[in-house]
Amino acid sequence: MTKYDKLVTNAAGRVVPTIINGEEHIPFMGVGKYKPGGRKYGPKIASCADYPEDGNKVVPGLKEALVRSGLKDGMTISTHHHFRNGDLMANQVFDIAKELGIKDLRWFPSASFPCQEHLVQYLEDGTINRIEGSMNGPLGRFASLGKMKGVGVLRSHGGRYQAIQDGEVKIDIAVIAAPTADAFGNANGVNGSAACGLLGFALGDSQYADKVIVVTYNLVPFPAIPWQIHGNYVDYVVEVDKVGLPEKIISGTTQITKSPDRLLIAEITAGFCEKAGLIYDGFSYQAGAGGTALSIGNYFGDILRKNNWKAAFIRAGSNKYPVEMLEEGIVSYILDGQTFDLEGVRSMRENSNHVATSPFTSYNYHGKGNFASLIDIVVLGATEVDVNFNANVVSHSDGYLLHGIGGWQNTLFGKTTIMPIPLFRDRIPVIRDEVTTLCAPGEMIDVIVTERGIAINPLRTDLIEKTKSSGLPIKTIQELKAEAEAICGIPEKPDLGDEIIAVVKWVDGTVIDSVRRVIK
Amino acid sequence: MTKYDKLVTNAAGRVVPTIINGEEHIPFMGVGKYKPGGRKYGPKIASCADYPEDGNKVVPGLKEALVRSGLKDGMTISTHHHFRNGDLMANQVFDIAKELGIKDLRWFPSASFPCQEHLVQYLEDGTINRIEGSMNGPLGRFASLGKMKGVGVLRSHGGRYQAIQDGEVKIDIAVIAAPTADAFGNANGVNGSAACGLLGFALGDSQYADKVIVVTYNLVPFPAIPWQIHGNYVDYVVEVDKVGLPEKIISGTTQITKSPDRLLIAEITAGFCEKAGLIYDGFSYQAGAGGTALSIGNYFGDILRKNNWKAAFIRAGSNKYPVEMLEEGIVSYILDGQTFDLEGVRSMRENSNHVATSPFTSYNYHGKGNFASLIDIVVLGATEVDVNFNANVVSHSDGYLLHGIGGWQNTLFGKTTIMPIPLFRDRIPVIRDEVTTLCAPGEMIDVIVTERGIAINPLRTDLIEKTKSSGLPIKTIQELKAEAEAICGIPEKPDLGDEIIAVVKWVDGTVIDSVRRVIK
Repeated sequence: MTKYDKLVTNAAGRVVPTIINGEEHIPFMGVGKYKPGGRKYGPKIASCADYPEDGNKVVPGLKEALVRSGLKDGMTISTHHHFRNGDLMANQVFDIAKELGIKDLRWFPSASFPCQEHLVQYLEDGTINRIEGSMNGPLGRFASLGKMKGVGVLRSHGGRYQAIQDGEVKIDIAVIAAPTADAFGNANGVNGSAACGLLGFALGDSQYADKVIVVTYNLVPFPAIPWQIHGNYVDYVVEVDKVGLPEKIISGTTQITKSPDRLLIAEITAGFCEKAGLIYDGFSYQAGAGGTALSIGNYFGDILRKNNWKAAFIRAGSNKYPVEMLEEGIVSYILDGQTFDLEGVRSMRENSNHVATSPFTSYNYHGKGNFASLIDIVVLGATEVDVNFNANVVSHSDGYLLHGIGGWQNTLFGKTTIMPIPLFRDRIPVIRDEVTTLCAPGEMIDVIVTERGIAINPLRTDLIEKTKSSGLPIKTIQELKAEAEAICGIPEKPDLGDEIIAVVKWVDGTVIDSVRRVIK
Repeated sequence: MTKYDKLVTNAAGRVVPTIINGEEHIPFMGVGKYKPGGRKYGPKIASCADYPEDGNKVVPGLKEALVRSGLKDGMTISTHHHFRNGDLMANQVFDIAKELGIKDLRWFPSASFPCQEHLVQYLEDGTINRIEGSMNGPLGRFASLGKMKGVGVLRSHGGRYQAIQDGEVKIDIAVIAAPTADAFGNANGVNGSAACGLLGFALGDSQYADKVIVVTYNLVPFPAIPWQIHGNYVDYVVEVDKVGLPEKIISGTTQITKSPDRLLIAEITAGFCEKAGLIYDGFSYQAGAGGTALSIGNYFGDILRKNNWKAAFIRAGSNKYPVEMLEEGIVSYILDGQTFDLEGVRSMRENSNHVATSPFTSYNYHGKGNFASLIDIVVLGATEVDVNFNANVVSHSDGYLLHGIGGWQNTLFGKTTIMPIPLFRDRIPVIRDEVTTLCAPGEMIDVIVTERGIAINPLRTDLIEKTKSSGLPIKTIQELKAEAEAICGIPEKPDLGDEIIAVVKWVDGTVIDSVRRVIK
């Protein structure tokens, strides 16, 4: 298999392969430019005649389920990150594959985490050919050094659903860790002592994978309600002692920031939104779980209370802060894709206005619309932005691929996308001439907020107009860059080889950038 | 187009065409014998680039939506019977088609009702070529007289989902009447003053149709929660004054029967279930909305109370009686496919243990199992049964096609299927030498209960054994037939022509029987 081949320069000016891991891919053509012509993937038609009449699909152990699923060399195996760094499933799956002498698997996680560093050995010995999915931490570092046999493929949450739906990635076996399930395979994440919230990242896998295995530690009598995963898509159910560690779903930072610089950025961001008229009775926003984003949410809450307004909905990643706003009644709904703490889990279980969503509803670009473009304000982070508002979220300025892409690309379709970022991190400027890895073209990013000023994308003349007499510290992005460089000096370029170790997909399945091997 | 061709004798001994309306179909091969080999239908891949960024899919009027959907000759148009005899959509759709001069449409309703008699004119003038779906009342009578241009195709609720999923029926335009929707197309049946309960019959249409139109009278701000229909599948939203008449969702009989004969049958049925050991702590059952079935449910409730037991779930067609049992706490869940009165609607809206299901979860035979086979006791009606326990539910003994097939075939997969039927109706015996139309092979029906005795299918030696000393009036089916004929005389055969006016599909998409033209 050719690792990659046929390099072209795409519409963003980036050199990308069009043959990746032996398969053909389309280079990025511009936002909204690529029009898919085909049909959705058609999984094999099943028959009830081949499934137990009493609905009992329980088999003794994950190994047995994988063997019955026909695990063999070269297959694509998917797992999911509902337990984030508390996942216990992926390591077990590949331990079994190794034990069975299986080679050359494609691991297709919805995201990978440091807890899966254990799998480096299988990437080395050929059990796993490559990871197609976000690589947080050690697995990304491993890939960055050029050690992965295949080329990594990074897809957004929506892009992952799109790839499954469109048949770009055919999953042979999906392994879904479920806090609660019944013997028929109906499963959810809201009940049981390992409740993690929802199982939306596994939705596409359940619908389209050839074989679907639900693994649970809390097997309840039929029916497991709610059935976030439909048993009608499930082949086997496995009962285990531990399915995941819910205390580890907590995302990096789930507390309001205490850093004075970050608090300042949060305050400026909220002030910008207010003065630009982006906040109104019935507005909606999406903010991540980082300390700055949470702080911005708090400021939004203050603005709502002050005006006696109510937000229509918060798109989340939920944790205790949006939950408090929901319970206080200053927001009508939380449309949640992923719970980031146990308060989020509780709220989703108890409150019918805290609604489970999925990459299908929220992010799939190859649907008849999705939720992302309906959101008024989207607050996002970035590892780098450049003077053309292009942004990077997966690699550091030294070239290492260390962060997941998550729903980041998808949410950029919100009406106003704001990136509150520090002007520099560890004395390395964040605003660059050119981003190391292009994850989003600049036209998608509207506002950069730093502790020393705000840069508005020149395309957003409306925002420039609305805030010109606001007293806000509006600057050009070049001015912000110059300020950082005056303090930190001009940053060095990363030392990268030619070899492509991963590619980043755009939301429509086209290739937006290549990630190169790190030399030093 | 050949109306039908290539007659063969299927595994049930019935002569059926294998070319129907110009397309190839597979004859019935026996229960569980036909194994589908293909892949599910893949609808066209959409792109968000082609849908409004603000999510507003509202267009001015149903005509506009149909025109934008590309309505043209020969298309397949689907509607749904969530409002049952209160549907207002189908007539409007075909009025518009007529106005636009469109011809030769295939109407693919989830069921048709007397309120759609209006469409006879379009069947006559060629606007509609044929109905593929249950025909209740006047449309069935019209078809029975050989007046429909194409051949009718009757599918069970599960068979309809299967046909859509498998690509056997490709829907061009689905028109979904929704009591509540948002501009993005998220829709539900539980909210709004025209609430009808759920929209499960339209699920497959939303997932697989080329164009999907949601019609509502209650347009709410995004998000319409719950989203029983996902807006991500919807092309256009239309606002109208009236979407359906919820007061007409009430099924024929929604009161406990007062007829002494029917009460006797109900009592014998419940007694049989109790003495055969079919009722236990955690059992489940499904009973329709007829007076006898409701009365049986009441008896089941008494047995639960007496033993201090709790049923695991009732599969429904819900109305006030199962709702009372749920609220009383003698059943854990109602798994509901269709609400038959407004108490059912209220309960589904308010009670998270009253769960909306769909033909996909409950009935699709081409899934990885479905709910039907998990149910302990299924109580069903029939227009006729024969001495081999074969049953008919769509035509009368005079040959007229007057009844919908509903989920009837699907529920036969329950563990014990019981048919409480009168020995005769209007002095016409119900037990025959041979059923007029074969809707289910005898092996699927376990027990026939009449006011004069119980016949157990000889295949169910376990039930025969368990009840042999029960004191219950167990007889052979031949004995029951002889008793009826002693009173009413031997019934005449219907006067039927050779011409096939419709076919009945089995749950796996194979053709189980033909329906012939009625001569007199």
